[in-house]
Amino acid sequence: MPDPAVVLVSGGLDSATVLAIARAGGFECNALSFRYGQRHVHELTCARAVAQQLGAQRHVVVDFDLRTFGGSALTADIEVPKDRPVDEMAHGIPSTYVPARNTIFLSFALAWAETLDAQDVFIGVNALDYSGYPDCRPEYIAAFEAMANLATRASVEGRTRLRIHTPLISLTKARIIRRGAELGVDYAITSSCYDTLPDGAPCLRCDSCALRAKGFAEAGVVDPLLVRYGLHAR
Amino acid sequence: MPDPAVVLVSGGLDSATVLAIARAGGFECNALSFRYGQRHVHELTCARAVAQQLGAQRHVVVDFDLRTFGGSALTADIEVPKDRPVDEMAHGIPSTYVPARNTIFLSFALAWAETLDAQDVFIGVNALDYSGYPDCRPEYIAAFEAMANLATRASVEGRTRLRIHTPLISLTKARIIRRGAELGVDYAITSSCYDTLPDGAPCLRCDSCALRAKGFAEAGVVDPLLVRYGLHAR
Repeated sequence: MPDPAVVLVSGGLDSATVLAIARAGGFECNALSFRYGQRHVHELTCARAVAQQLGAQRHVVVDFDLRTFGGSALTADIEVPKDRPVDEMAHGIPSTYVPARNTIFLSFALAWAETLDAQDVFIGVNALDYSGYPDCRPEYIAAFEAMANLATRASVEGRTRLRIHTPLISLTKARIIRRGAELGVDYAITSSCYDTLPDGAPCLRCDSCALRAKGFAEAGVVDPLLVRYGLHAR
Repeated sequence: MPDPAVVLVSGGLDSATVLAIARAGGFECNALSFRYGQRHVHELTCARAVAQQLGAQRHVVVDFDLRTFGGSALTADIEVPKDRPVDEMAHGIPSTYVPARNTIFLSFALAWAETLDAQDVFIGVNALDYSGYPDCRPEYIAAFEAMANLATRASVEGRTRLRIHTPLISLTKARIIRRGAELGVDYAITSSCYDTLPDGAPCLRCDSCALRAKGFAEAGVVDPLLVRYGLHAR
């Protein structure tokens, strides 16, 4: 029987690739998404499609509302930055940073992993895109893993030793796209945009759209999401 | 202006005492509770009363449903243990343990602390009552604090250095009760029971009721909650 793993699936390009990698590694994948009051809730429709198409065993969406705390352009009434040069994104932490979001996501993953007796959690963090994001750095992930291995009944009883897998952490977007393409990921059903239009089309102007476009350009591949919506790269 | 702190308030005896301690320490207290699918949701009514009576600045309840994952007598269709001798509770982890609950709670506290620019989080964990609870041990708290100080924009920018305060971690229940009484905590408005009756009265048979009763007995004080409901200690 394959080992169970919890895979964080946002509906974006990165986490779809991670799910494909975890499946290729032989894991039974339990896909986990969050409805947290995000502006771009369209991504959850994509998460469902991704989980299904890439053979997740099951897909669970946990609901809570981070708008209670605010503090981010993704969860508060703060404008999403548009038309920024990609180089600029590498400096500082953008307003789309959501306080402690990855810590919250990984905590729920830990809870589910414990009830599944799973030792493996996959997350698509990347330390290159936004070098300033604190909760995408290897040292943060290592600290979370150390904490997790003191946190649960399963870890204390020695039944499981939790490992947080971050297969994309040091890959460029172009390499992520090439890896996903090899594994058969259909990026047409993913969504990266922070500010999707009502029909689910990407805005093509936010940081996340810009990084995605740069990645496809560098990979020398046309983004099938653009084809799907009849759009052209800017 | 007093420093802001986030205080986890469950509505129980311990966290009420912690809130009083944080207030006595001069903090502006932001009380945080969770509706997580717990069987004993009555505790949230108590949390609101405690936050108000002990002068919290505000009280926020975050909603999510851990019944999705199950795995605990508090969130799944598993019976709450009754009539166990207190000595027995010190061995192993009871079925009322909720997978990764404190990690999830502290993660939300971290998120709120970041948006408040708070450096201080208070939690009423205790390493004596259930010596087997993994996420009540000092080494777990230290590991969470280390992770938290790598997790947020505020910590990375050096604006805050998060500290997790656990003022009760090594106190007996009797000492906690005496300390709370000194600080004017009204334990009649708290609820510790895992399986409260429809009118909010404690069952007096679960582990949590038993520990509470032992604490009041050792402190030489009558539990005002019993008086409120016209009950007698068993």
